[in-house]
Amino acid sequence: MSETELHPEQQPPESELDEDDRLKPEFVSAVLEAVAAGDAETARMRVAPLHPADIADLVELTPAELRPALAAAISDLIDGDVLAEMNDWVREALVDALEPHQVADIAAELDTDDAVAIIEDMDFEDQREVLRALDPDDRAAIEEALSYPEETAGRLMQRELIAVPEHWTVGDVLDYLRGHEELATDFWEIFVVDPAHHPVGTCALSWILRTPRGVSISDVMKREQTLIPGDMDQEEVALRFQKYALISAAVVDSSGRLVGMITVDDVVHIISEEAGEDILRLSGAGDGDINEPVLTTVRTRLVWLVVNLGTAMIAASVVNLFDRVIAGYALLAALMGIVSGMGGNAGTQTLAVVVRALATNQLTESNMTRTVLRELRIAAVNGLSLGVLIGLGTLVIFHNPTLSFVFGLAILINNLIAGLAGVLIPLTMDRLRIDPAVSSAVFVTLMTDSLGFFAFLGLATLFRVHGGA
Amino acid sequence: MSETELHPEQQPPESELDEDDRLKPEFVSAVLEAVAAGDAETARMRVAPLHPADIADLVELTPAELRPALAAAISDLIDGDVLAEMNDWVREALVDALEPHQVADIAAELDTDDAVAIIEDMDFEDQREVLRALDPDDRAAIEEALSYPEETAGRLMQRELIAVPEHWTVGDVLDYLRGHEELATDFWEIFVVDPAHHPVGTCALSWILRTPRGVSISDVMKREQTLIPGDMDQEEVALRFQKYALISAAVVDSSGRLVGMITVDDVVHIISEEAGEDILRLSGAGDGDINEPVLTTVRTRLVWLVVNLGTAMIAASVVNLFDRVIAGYALLAALMGIVSGMGGNAGTQTLAVVVRALATNQLTESNMTRTVLRELRIAAVNGLSLGVLIGLGTLVIFHNPTLSFVFGLAILINNLIAGLAGVLIPLTMDRLRIDPAVSSAVFVTLMTDSLGFFAFLGLATLFRVHGGA
Repeated sequence: MSETELHPEQQPPESELDEDDRLKPEFVSAVLEAVAAGDAETARMRVAPLHPADIADLVELTPAELRPALAAAISDLIDGDVLAEMNDWVREALVDALEPHQVADIAAELDTDDAVAIIEDMDFEDQREVLRALDPDDRAAIEEALSYPEETAGRLMQRELIAVPEHWTVGDVLDYLRGHEELATDFWEIFVVDPAHHPVGTCALSWILRTPRGVSISDVMKREQTLIPGDMDQEEVALRFQKYALISAAVVDSSGRLVGMITVDDVVHIISEEAGEDILRLSGAGDGDINEPVLTTVRTRLVWLVVNLGTAMIAASVVNLFDRVIAGYALLAALMGIVSGMGGNAGTQTLAVVVRALATNQLTESNMTRTVLRELRIAAVNGLSLGVLIGLGTLVIFHNPTLSFVFGLAILINNLIAGLAGVLIPLTMDRLRIDPAVSSAVFVTLMTDSLGFFAFLGLATLFRVHGGA
Repeated sequence: MSETELHPEQQPPESELDEDDRLKPEFVSAVLEAVAAGDAETARMRVAPLHPADIADLVELTPAELRPALAAAISDLIDGDVLAEMNDWVREALVDALEPHQVADIAAELDTDDAVAIIEDMDFEDQREVLRALDPDDRAAIEEALSYPEETAGRLMQRELIAVPEHWTVGDVLDYLRGHEELATDFWEIFVVDPAHHPVGTCALSWILRTPRGVSISDVMKREQTLIPGDMDQEEVALRFQKYALISAAVVDSSGRLVGMITVDDVVHIISEEAGEDILRLSGAGDGDINEPVLTTVRTRLVWLVVNLGTAMIAASVVNLFDRVIAGYALLAALMGIVSGMGGNAGTQTLAVVVRALATNQLTESNMTRTVLRELRIAAVNGLSLGVLIGLGTLVIFHNPTLSFVFGLAILINNLIAGLAGVLIPLTMDRLRIDPAVSSAVFVTLMTDSLGFFAFLGLATLFRVHGGA
């Protein structure tokens, strides 16, 4: 892999990582063996040089039953940064094992958003205890964040930010930043506020660095800024960061006062989660988190399977309407699955495209009609191609013209049904403000299965298809 | 929506956007009507205040046949930033309509990465012409970027970056930045290099701002840095930015020299694309881009449907083995779809979870066995629950104990098959370095359909299930 070509000394301590930045299995097992053997020192020495994100991965890769032992062995290495990087389920289990004052110590050293991420999962009682153990400022910050609903900007924002008055010069800003030890150390933009603490502009650090001390900050700042309301859903926040290529953004309360800042590195996780969620919801796998307790997963998936059992039974009863036709010509039973299957595949294709286009705001009212027509055109072309292909194939194999015609026609019809259902159902769900990724698949399958069977077996009855000809 | 509560003057010019930051349909149609009516001035006035990203959206939302007229009406507003934000297909069409020297003028004003994004899609001839029309520096930068394979760090990086020698002080850096007009204006970190131009450290601007002039830059910089090899795949780049919460990173050539910089805002798009791709590939929808020409989409999807036709035919031939059994008891034909359907759903659930876990590096060799066992446990519990549920239901409805037993058992068996196939097939594909999202679904369906039918109809034959009892 190309990394190996690089001078080792230029590499971050990645020697324990493979070319995809994953911890090498040898390393993981070596550490776990040390832990199992009670040799905490060796474990510590191996883990110490790792980046917090990699230590978090190590804990996740460790079997649940071994995690407490590992955590005990490297306890001083599992700081707030590590916990912040950790999978929710894994972190929750670890945090539950800690004393509230230990959690408080960890939370105190973190930015608000990371502290909140750790505390929001705890049950109410422990949460209270942790908050009591915090000093008043931290407590106030975290309590305000917790006052916003989960998965909103208010939970993502950090209080640690730099805000300066309009009348300051670049020099004032430099002196202020150099003079105050307690200020935030990691920030990418500073916010310019009016006396009422309303943001009036944003100033990238690179502009400040390139401007002489004498210039007024209000001449350097960008006036049009993207403000994030504290109660905005995190998915919208992510889309906004993405659309406007933001590095950080000011979070304002309902009266427009600056209350916090969201930085892109916190949003990056959400962008990838939200984009990945669709795939999992569409297939009824819930959050699809491999660290989730088995029973939670079983429940989520079973509900979906039972719902689909319903649609499968409806499809089956459609088939059963034609039991006499089938008994007369059992080949129909074998072929009908191809009709429903092809329809199901075509429907899923359309569904996936439409769900994705909706999630990324590419599909709006303005191009809705065009998109529906586009999917119909595609369905028609593919249905026709498959219909002819399958019809001819059937003729060659079974020498039964009526069967071939009925089969091909049913394929075409079901492709059209699939295209129509695949685009109209998610659009309707979206209009009803129901997440199309969660709810659409069942209905699309219901359509392609039931109507597919009905079209095929119905036509077979109509045209008196039988083995004899 | 909460934005409305904000003081209007604090909002970016978003009045034309709905609460999801999408252009309002009224606005889009108003602009397009003006364009259609030949009233370019009105169109320009409406569009001018928009953010480049919104202008790009507007073009995408415009029907293809109207785009040239729109582009002509607002040509001066469609600058490089707008093109950089635009969907590849839409941009390609627009760029093809431009003269090479026009493209060159646009490319010249852009950062390398954006210029490359515009030029890399052009056919070789036009590309040459555009490059010839560029001044030597820009040409060299773009030609070097183009020398890296598509979808690698080399294509994403921009040449515009700040690199300073180790021995400089913070003051030297400030004077350098203030003294040189031609330097990059938007950057978040500066890179410290040795005489051979190898990066030795990275320095966030916030640290520079907080440090007195006299301090040496080498005392402020972070020595462990994440270096990106120019030939690294963009998906790996994205994962690395995400994992280490990077804002920008140095790109190095094969000998470790600093050749460019990648910033997080360029990576954010990739993170969301790569995460979204899985959903589309898994369903055989290719890139699933609604702006893709219909014929390209038809081809991609048709290939997938034909492949699935193959698996459907195999499943059908399995059913056909049992035509006598089915002819004797047509109800089996109706119920067998439920067996394959339930298996298909369970398989897709597991598949989606595993594909996602692999894509996000959460599933590695270290927790592979654990994950396989986890999925099997889930499959067993769900299969048992569904089997019993369906068995009892069948007994109640059809009063046929043998059928109920066979049906329930087949459901259980097919759930186990689904769980096993859903986890082992993508893991195998990944091991073979084949994208599991593209290739796994077909095989999983093949298993759940064929083996599902075989289990159900086979057991029915074995236990002589018939309507009589």
